[in-house]
Order: sequence, then C-alpha cells, then structure tokens
Amino acid sequence: MVHKVAVIGAGPSGLTSIKACLDEGMVPTCFESSDDMGGLWKFKEVSEPNRASIYRSLTINISKEMMCYSDYPIPADYPNYMHHSKILKYFRMYAEHFKVLQHIRFQTSVKSVKQRPDFSRTGQWEVVTENRDGQEERHVFDAVICCAGHYTYPNLPLKDFPGIETFEGKYLHSWDYKGPEDMHGKTVVVIGIGNSGGDIAVESSRVAEQVYMSTRRGAWVIRQVSDNGLPVDMKYNTRFVHILFQLLPMSILNWIGEKKLNAMYDHTMYALKPKHRLFSQIPVINDDLPHRILSGSVILKPNVKEIRGSTVVFDDGSIVEKVDTIVFATGYSYDFPFLPSNALYKSGHRVGLYKHVFPPNMEHPTLAVVGFIHALGAIMPQAEMQARWVTRVFKGLKKLPSNQAMIKAVEQDTKDMEKSYITSKLTPLQVDFVTYMDELAGEIGVRPSLLWLFFTDYPLFKRVLWGPVTSYQYRLMGPGKWEGARRAIFTQFDRMYQPLKTRQLKEQDASITGRLFKLSLTIMAGAASIYYIHVRNPTTIPTLLSKLRPQTI
Amino acid sequence: MVHKVAVIGAGPSGLTSIKACLDEGMVPTCFESSDDMGGLWKFKEVSEPNRASIYRSLTINISKEMMCYSDYPIPADYPNYMHHSKILKYFRMYAEHFKVLQHIRFQTSVKSVKQRPDFSRTGQWEVVTENRDGQEERHVFDAVICCAGHYTYPNLPLKDFPGIETFEGKYLHSWDYKGPEDMHGKTVVVIGIGNSGGDIAVESSRVAEQVYMSTRRGAWVIRQVSDNGLPVDMKYNTRFVHILFQLLPMSILNWIGEKKLNAMYDHTMYALKPKHRLFSQIPVINDDLPHRILSGSVILKPNVKEIRGSTVVFDDGSIVEKVDTIVFATGYSYDFPFLPSNALYKSGHRVGLYKHVFPPNMEHPTLAVVGFIHALGAIMPQAEMQARWVTRVFKGLKKLPSNQAMIKAVEQDTKDMEKSYITSKLTPLQVDFVTYMDELAGEIGVRPSLLWLFFTDYPLFKRVLWGPVTSYQYRLMGPGKWEGARRAIFTQFDRMYQPLKTRQLKEQDASITGRLFKLSLTIMAGAASIYYIHVRNPTTIPTLLSKLRPQTI
Repeated sequence: MVHKVAVIGAGPSGLTSIKACLDEGMVPTCFESSDDMGGLWKFKEVSEPNRASIYRSLTINISKEMMCYSDYPIPADYPNYMHHSKILKYFRMYAEHFKVLQHIRFQTSVKSVKQRPDFSRTGQWEVVTENRDGQEERHVFDAVICCAGHYTYPNLPLKDFPGIETFEGKYLHSWDYKGPEDMHGKTVVVIGIGNSGGDIAVESSRVAEQVYMSTRRGAWVIRQVSDNGLPVDMKYNTRFVHILFQLLPMSILNWIGEKKLNAMYDHTMYALKPKHRLFSQIPVINDDLPHRILSGSVILKPNVKEIRGSTVVFDDGSIVEKVDTIVFATGYSYDFPFLPSNALYKSGHRVGLYKHVFPPNMEHPTLAVVGFIHALGAIMPQAEMQARWVTRVFKGLKKLPSNQAMIKAVEQDTKDMEKSYITSKLTPLQVDFVTYMDELAGEIGVRPSLLWLFFTDYPLFKRVLWGPVTSYQYRLMGPGKWEGARRAIFTQFDRMYQPLKTRQLKEQDASITGRLFKLSLTIMAGAASIYYIHVRNPTTIPTLLSKLRPQTI
Repeated sequence: MVHKVAVIGAGPSGLTSIKACLDEGMVPTCFESSDDMGGLWKFKEVSEPNRASIYRSLTINISKEMMCYSDYPIPADYPNYMHHSKILKYFRMYAEHFKVLQHIRFQTSVKSVKQRPDFSRTGQWEVVTENRDGQEERHVFDAVICCAGHYTYPNLPLKDFPGIETFEGKYLHSWDYKGPEDMHGKTVVVIGIGNSGGDIAVESSRVAEQVYMSTRRGAWVIRQVSDNGLPVDMKYNTRFVHILFQLLPMSILNWIGEKKLNAMYDHTMYALKPKHRLFSQIPVINDDLPHRILSGSVILKPNVKEIRGSTVVFDDGSIVEKVDTIVFATGYSYDFPFLPSNALYKSGHRVGLYKHVFPPNMEHPTLAVVGFIHALGAIMPQAEMQARWVTRVFKGLKKLPSNQAMIKAVEQDTKDMEKSYITSKLTPLQVDFVTYMDELAGEIGVRPSLLWLFFTDYPLFKRVLWGPVTSYQYRLMGPGKWEGARRAIFTQFDRMYQPLKTRQLKEQDASITGRLFKLSLTIMAGAASIYYIHVRNPTTIPTLLSKLRPQTI
C-alpha cells in the first residue's frame, strides 16, 4: 500500500500532484530544485540551465476558466488571459488553500530515482537528492510522480543550418529570450512558427528594424479574441463541438475550420498557409501576427538553407543581409536524466507512457509522469486529472491492465498519433483535450454523464453540453466530487465577464430604429408568407380566420 | 494673374501643393521651419515646440493604396500599413520625381502673412520669414497656401482635472510620447481614446505594470485587418458602399455596422461602447486593443473626476492608487499664429473655410489652407485634391462664389456637421472621405463619371464602382489627367498583395474532400429543387424532358 510519495518538481503539475496525494490520504514530499514554486511560470531575468524559462511579457494563451484547477476557480476579477505574474499568484493561492506548501522542499534537486533492490516485492524507490549546499540525501518512497515538465531542454538543431558557425551576429534559442531590449533597430530572423516563435517575432518587430519569420511548414494561426470577443476556448472548446468531432469526417471539419480562419485573414495571402490541414496539428495562437504581417514589420520566409557571415539564405534563393540576430524557436527536447532507463519505454519516436502517464513495463505501477502532455488546452487541468488518476492507482483503487496490454495500447497510441497528426515526430506529446480529459475521467469514474444530467438536472445538462468543457465538469460526480462544481459551472461566464466590467455603460435599449427595422422585416416576412399561402391555396386564410371568429352557440 | 506662390510647410500637404503649383505653371516657394520635409511624418527623438510630433513605433492606419498621391503609386513591395520611416521614404521619392525639392527653403519659418496695402487691387501678400540665424526677410507673393498642419498645438485641458497640481507622478501629452521606455513596471493612466490614446495604451501595456484607459465617451474601434485579411479601407471604402450611404437611412447603416463590429468583439462586453452611434464619429482604429483588454493589461475606465497625490479618482467612484504616469491623449488645438486675424472667419466653434480651404471673406481668393481636414481616409490624397483645386482657382480657371454665398455655405456646413457628428466641437475638421473627394473633384472637373465609364470602359467601370476609392480615380479624366491612372486602378490589388508574397506556397487545389462536400451539397440542392417542382406540378419535369428528347421529323 502506497503511503509515502515523492513528487519531483513544484510547477503546476507538481502542485496538483501534491494536492491529489493529500486528497487520497498519502504523504507527499515534493523536491523542487529552485527556490520557488510555479515551475515554468516563475519568471527569472536570466534563464537557468535545466529549468524551463519564459519571457517577460508572456501571457498564457488559454483563458482562465479553461486553465484553472477543477475545484479552485480563478478569482472573478482576474483577467481572462493572464500574465505569468498573475498565474503565479493563482498558484500561490491554490498552494495555500490546499496546504500544499509545507510538503515542498525547495532548493533540493533530484539526482537519481532507482528501484529499490526489493522493488519486485515492495514497488519502492530510492530517491537521491542534493540540497543547495551540495549535500546528498537518500530517501525511500513507495511511489514517485515525476512532474519535471517538458520545456526544460532547448532543441537547437544547429546542424540543420549550414554555415551557422560563420554567423557574425548573435543567435539564441527562444528559451534564452527574455524581451526585445536587444532588438532595437536590428534585423532579426526568427526560425520556427510555434507559439514562442510567433510571440517573439511579434514582440521584436515593435522595436526591430525588420523581423523575418522563417518557417518550413507554415501554420494555421488562431485568435484568442473569438466571435463577439469571447475567449476562443470558451467559445469552441465545448462538449457539443467535441461531439461534432466524433460524428463528422475530419476532412469536413478541416474544410469548415479553415474556411472560418481564412475569413479572418486568408492564410494563403498572408503566406502562412501550411501543407497540413487545420486539425492535423495544434494551431498557433497569436492575435497580433496578422497586423504585423500586413504592416510589413514581420515578413514570412521559407526554411533557412544556409547562413553565410551575416547573410541568411532561404530555400527559395532569397537572401537577407546584415542579420543581427537569429532566434531559434525550435522547441524542446525531452529528457528525464534522473529516471532509470528501464522506466522509459520507447515507442517509435515517443517516450511510451500508458495514457501519457505510466511506464507500461513496470512490475509495480508506482512510477508516474504527470504533465508530460500537449493539447489545445492548458496543462493544469490535464495534469490535475492525471494526478487524480495516479493517486487512485497508487492507492490500489484502480488497477492498470497487464504490462502486455499497456504496451499494446501505447503502440496503438503511437500509430493513431502518426495518423492524426502530420508532424508527430516534432510533437510527440499531442493529445485532444476533451478526448483525453474524458478518457482519464472515465478511469477515475468522474466523467459527467450527459444522459443522467438530462434527466436529473436539465439546466446543468444544457451548460455541460453547450458550454465550454471547464474542468469543474469533472467534479460533479464520483470520487473527489466537489460541492461547488455545479455552481462554478453556472457562474463560469460571470467570472469571464467580471474583469471587463470596469466602465459602466448606461445600457441603452437597442436603438428604436434598429427595432423598427427588425419589426418591419418581420412584418414584411409575415405578409409575404400570408400572400404566398394565399396564392397557393386561396381558401386557407379565410378558413383559418373563420375558425378564429367567435361562434354563436 | 497669380504667378508666385508661397507654400507654408513641407509636410504631405506642402509637398503636393508645390507640385500642384508646378503643374499649373506657377512658381512656388515653400518655407519649412525644420531641416527636412515630411512634417508630421519626420520622426524626432524629442518633440519640438510648434511642430507636430509622432512616436517611434507609429504606423499609419490607412493602407498604402488609399493614402498615396493620385499620380504616384507607392512601390509594390512596400507594406500595406507603412511605418513612418517608409512614409518619409515615399515622400522623398515623390519630391524627387516631381522636382519639388528645389522649391523648399528649409530652416525658414514664417513669422507673418499680411495683405499688401494694394491687396484690393493685386491680391498680393507680404510674407515675413526668419532663417535659422534669426535673420528676417520680406517677400511678396501673389498667393499663399498654408499647409501648417493641425497636430501642432497639444490640447492639454488641465483645468478639467481637479487636483492635477497635486499629482506626484509624471504627466505628459501624447505629443510628448515617443515610446514606452519610461513605462516599465509603472502604473499608467491614459486619458482619451482617440487613435493616439489607443496606440499609447496598447504599447505601454506591454511593459507597464498596469495601464488604465480613461474615456468619457467610449468609442467604436475597428480593425485594419478586415474580412479575409484585406486592409479595411480597401474592403469598405468603395464607391458602392458610398452609394449605399446615400441611399439608406443612417440609422440602418449604424445598425448594420455596429452589428458587424460587435460580432468581432462586443463593445458592451469590452466596456468600449460609446453613447453615440457608429457613424456619428470617425471610429478609432486599433487591431491590438481587444486582446489587451481581454488579457487585462489595458483596463477601461470612465472619465477622471479628480487627482489626489498619486491617486486617480474616476467618475464612478473607483480609484487607482500609486499612479506613476498620466498620458493626456486629449488631441490638438488649432491655430494659425502667422495669419492675419481677418483671414480666419469663425463659424460657431469652427474656423470657417469654404469647402475647408478658402477663407470666405477675402476680397481675392489668394489665400488657401490645405490639409486642414480629418476623415476616415488619409490626408495625402485629400490635400492633393485641395491643392489641385486651389491652384486652378489661383490661376483663374475656376471661380469661387461671392463672399456672401461662401459664408452661407460655410454656415450650412457647420450646421450639417453638428447634425451628423455628435462631437463636432471636438472634431471640427471632420468630413466624409469620398463625399469630400468627389465634391472637390467636381469643382476641378475630374470626378469620374460612372455612366460614361459604363458605356466606354466596362472593366474600368466595375473596378471604380466595386473597388476602393483610390485617388487614381481622380486622374482618369479632366484637367491633370494621368495616363497611368487606368493601369494603376487595374493593378491596385496586385500592389496590395505584392509585399505579402514572401513565402511561396505550392498552390494546392481546394482539397478533394472540400470539393466533394461542395459538390454533394449542390447535388442535394438540385435534387431537392427537382423533387419540389415535381411535387408541386408533376407534369413539369416529364414535359421538360420530352422537350429535350430528339424529335423525329
């Protein structure tokens, strides 16, 4: 029976893992190498090796109702897209509320995690840590949750850029980028069109002489400010849309989605259009990019062919001279240096984890990876769901399939991923947000039953079906049920509107003319219908009228 | 007969005025107080008194095809929304091409413009200038064109902000704003929601701790990146839309326009909604504002009630403490200190100029003001049109009405403006772009005749009717006809697309599935129609088919 659990890392995944352990009555100890919680979201002025790093201006691209933990809504007055400083504040509140803090040992890094000699019998792990004074310590744990994140090791594929060694300017990975201070008046080439590449190109372009954005594949780019100004995920990450995705062929969905995106700005005209279809890869989120392209401050370019001194040559033969800075926004590599190699089952190009969590080849399910995932949705609710599942497996309340079955499932996952996502080698962590949440929720027994809701709580049913799939939906029933969940769902749009109510408007009625216009349209439509019915069947209307006439008895 | 013309100021209006003088065979002398051309568009790191001033990042909000002079298209590879540095380049090319430069006397400011004693007979003016060494010079001119601009004198209404004298932070007018360097980590209040206020709030918000944007009235805000990514003015500033505006009641147009804007983002939800209707005031242009509001980095606030130390109190009683900076984006006052007071006829709150150009009370029409105007369109083509008219009036080719008639017209203008524009006191220079262009073009005789084009050049007719009202349309016929105009109209969209063609896309066909989907929709619609016809009249289809059958003779 698992009692003592090591949690590696006090980022968003670590915090909720500690909380999940506490919820299940286990004793977690979290080792955090830095001096603060928050992981990725703890901004530092200088990037530190083996730690995730963000830039000064970073604002999350998932709206607050879609990113929060399921039993702790973000304060109503917080903005919908939060700056990293606000996200960290939220984590602190969460940690304080659930008394998570006292279980974290800061400035303590994990050097190794090894199966104990008696692992076959106990499932226990030996964890070696090192504190800031370099002192090592050995611990025994019944189980380990690894929450080390996946934005730690920059992927810098210099060998794909012949001549980079002759480059006379400065080059850096987006991991090293903190802000555009050094870009004033410079000519900048940003390589890669992920979310970081897009953000850095846009931000640099406000001070640089010229920014070029080189992309091999192109990208579909979506806006956070969606129809009527709603956060795009509140609008489209709904259960209804999810059901549509189950029912309609992907090619039709792609066709509809691309049409909608191109209506905002034509991806061909903007030189953004990728070779892949919209839903074959998680789209890039960037509200400012189209205007930067239209104003010429960001110029799209194909792949870099070679670099010669300060000249960058692109695949189409075009060149840009006097380049001062190259930013490689080329993503991250994945590594778990402290885990035993036998824990890392390889499936094709992926680290094969059963449902992205459990190594499928362990004798005991006492090692789990939480937050090692990427979807068009925030990590927080997904990591939380994983942690809820993990702790129930640790506790023995849920059984995992046999190793063989898990390995088979992992291999099938890899195949499915290769089929769905065109660039699965670059993005091995990709999942569909709702599908994945529902799948794990099914494991835990907290997946909301639409049918049940339909018969027992129709107002809630409507909100669960048509509304955004906020994580509160997974606290409505089953283990870990939270009494506040129903109310949180009913008030989720209130919390979305709240931070915008900063200037009272005297709510005018819709203008009289507008109403007259609508009224006259209605009357005209009515008259036309009556006329049409009358022409088709001249007796209908007199008959109807006669039926309305008071009858003399 | 006018021969020697003084042009005051070498900004966009001055340059085209010099060119217009040359075109009419007159001899212009342009006095420019600074050391360079460009006026407003000549960026200086520090604002200089009695000169317009812009900020470092300023990008024009009118697209290149809609802002260029009518006989000198902007190079095809220039971006659609140009940074001020590119605009200045364009001016230099224009000045060089039309040999304008040699007529400018730099670092020479105009001290006074006075009627000569024999004005009644000659219409001549005495112009006193001062060079950089302080030396005065007197000149006699047959006519004067004043192109001094209207962004020169900041309007800083401190008396409307009680307690401003107790403010412990720094305050400045937007005229003094150069960039967000001083805003790092600061709490900033921007007062006013014009284009400058919007730009400054958005730019500051990227580095500030928090930006508040205080607005008394609110505003309708439009995006430059319009449907399908077209520049909004290329899409909507068309002759067809202009005709719609003549035909439909304004209230219906407002209703449609507001509906469309709110579909992008609900102005009520975003606390932007003004009391006035959409077309009662020139809307604010800002692509980035909605996302800044949704991410909470710009917070909308009502009018400032008072200031107490570092605390700002708003009309709704809410307060913001520890304000570091207040930016007054409160617009500009208008003044012509060097003109004789009798040249400035006052009509209500406005400087009354006949068709925004000629003082209506002069004995001779030898004084004109060019570029003293504000529309949802660039100043350049409007100033150019004014200059073309002015020089033809100077030359005696066009007569102005009697003083009485002009005064009556000016008074009528003031009345009309008060009726159309809700805030006419704040924006006395407001005109409708196409209406005004057409009106002056009518005076000159260069207004394109749709009827004539319909019969003589249908392809051109289509482009003039449905396409954007680019200024080339006013070079198709009449005085100043330019042979390149027709071609410029046919290629205007090519020039729009050109700067975006920086990454070649292998033009895929519309996906096969998409086409199949469309095809099946068509077939289904066809089948439904046939079925419907058949149900209504079972003989129709056999009859039709029998008619198609080959007949035996």
